[in-house]
Amino acid sequence: MSLLQILTIIGTITFAITGALKARTHRMDVFGGAVLAFVTAYGGGTIRDLLLGKQPVNWVNDFLALYFVVGSAVFVFLFKMNHVFFKRLIYITDAVGLGVFTIAGIQVAFSLGATPIYAVIMGVITATFGGLLADILCSVQPSILRRGELYATSCLIGGICFVALKKYQLANTAETVICVLLIIVIRIVATRRQIKLPAI
Amino acid sequence: MSLLQILTIIGTITFAITGALKARTHRMDVFGGAVLAFVTAYGGGTIRDLLLGKQPVNWVNDFLALYFVVGSAVFVFLFKMNHVFFKRLIYITDAVGLGVFTIAGIQVAFSLGATPIYAVIMGVITATFGGLLADILCSVQPSILRRGELYATSCLIGGICFVALKKYQLANTAETVICVLLIIVIRIVATRRQIKLPAI
Amino acid sequence: MSLLQILTIIGTITFAITGALKARTHRMDVFGGAVLAFVTAYGGGTIRDLLLGKQPVNWVNDFLALYFVVGSAVFVFLFKMNHVFFKRLIYITDAVGLGVFTIAGIQVAFSLGATPIYAVIMGVITATFGGLLADILCSVQPSILRRGELYATSCLIGGICFVALKKYQLANTAETVICVLLIIVIRIVATRRQIKLPAI
Repeated sequence: MSLLQILTIIGTITFAITGALKARTHRMDVFGGAVLAFVTAYGGGTIRDLLLGKQPVNWVNDFLALYFVVGSAVFVFLFKMNHVFFKRLIYITDAVGLGVFTIAGIQVAFSLGATPIYAVIMGVITATFGGLLADILCSVQPSILRRGELYATSCLIGGICFVALKKYQLANTAETVICVLLIIVIRIVATRRQIKLPAI
Repeated sequence: MSLLQILTIIGTITFAITGALKARTHRMDVFGGAVLAFVTAYGGGTIRDLLLGKQPVNWVNDFLALYFVVGSAVFVFLFKMNHVFFKRLIYITDAVGLGVFTIAGIQVAFSLGATPIYAVIMGVITATFGGLLADILCSVQPSILRRGELYATSCLIGGICFVALKKYQLANTAETVICVLLIIVIRIVATRRQIKLPAI
Repeated sequence: MSLLQILTIIGTITFAITGALKARTHRMDVFGGAVLAFVTAYGGGTIRDLLLGKQPVNWVNDFLALYFVVGSAVFVFLFKMNHVFFKRLIYITDAVGLGVFTIAGIQVAFSLGATPIYAVIMGVITATFGGLLADILCSVQPSILRRGELYATSCLIGGICFVALKKYQLANTAETVICVLLIIVIRIVATRRQIKLPAI
């Protein structure tokens, strides 16, 4: 199993846990928790697949997806997870998920015929629209659209770098790792220094 | 016309009426009422079709769908429907709809190549995500994700039984009727005894 | 470039500006503004394409779409736009967008195999569901479902006239212009005279 596959699994589980925790915040039951875990982890890729015409969408008939989601929901159900260590861990692994989902989303978009700029857009959608859908299911305004620390913006910057590097024919693995790291670093620096986009 | 077709029509009309009533609760106009009737009755099957890749989705070009929806909206517009008899009737026919939509959804999912466990998931989506979409259109948190009496859970149990029975090659009609009844019974018992899932 | 193409561009830019302004009202950042501009301008056509099975959806790989949306978001970012002249201008061009999007949506729906009545429904969806999606992203009840001056209804009337005229084989351009104008007039008269649909 490659490093990227391991990082993708870490990202998927983190997103699912984030979704289940969101369900808890909004006083849902375990079914709601499982739905929010699924939507947060796989919703972004689902929207990308629908827009580009890949059907069945990526997670249909995927057993692993189900294990990750149900496992994450059960984990959240069993543990309170308000320990400081958990929060810090999720904060880091969420940035990892952001990075790998963006780059993986761009590669899928390329394979489905997207032009470079739209591949980047699809990468950002893959990484961030799962959380957006989960927020909609909680009936709250999606946090990625509000004034927070750079979130979608870090995906956008990392995605543009990935497409630019690809043009210069750099080795696939090298450019992928660089851009995933770039997204992680931008995201973490932005939260530390409270860097935000201006209001519209 | 078979018993199952009749039950499906009853379920469709009930779901459409439920949607139109929800529109009234949220102070919409007749256009909003028709949209919510449509979304509640056909939204779940639409999501299933999109995820699995059946397009045009099931209701496109279907005249009957339009009659059911517009008829239900007009019916709600003309009658107050806050009579106790109506409420009891809808409570029963909603459970019927839940049962037939789940099993019909599973059969469509099988025909579109879903594995058993994902066919069950698609059945639950078919039966419950129309109401979820309608709730989103009303800007309220979807009731199926909250702590209510077993709703999606009864579809899940009935769906798993259907898939299990199918494996043992029981006659198609028999297993269908049994599982539809099972879902109806679980739902009604759950509301009577206030059986709920635990919070996440 | 034909008159209809010019009107379509005017409509697209107006819808995008409306979306960006909505983002400002709901205190989003510039990323949120761009997302709402995109969703308002292209969301309706996207839903139509998904329901009828045209994928990639209409705007994927379309550079112009990106320019319109980003340009509109930047424009809203730079200017306050609360001048009375702007508001009046947008009020008129929004009605223009409503007209051209409905008729263009019907023509696309016909080309994708919709029957006349469903083509009209798809036309209404094309013109109005972008704003509906944007409202959902703001976590407010979609305005087109509430009791406002005829909005979707004017699209519906104009769309039915278009399909009826088409049946009598009138010249394509003539019937298009007539129906676009009809929708604009109905919409403007309805807002002037406060004509509303009854509540459900």
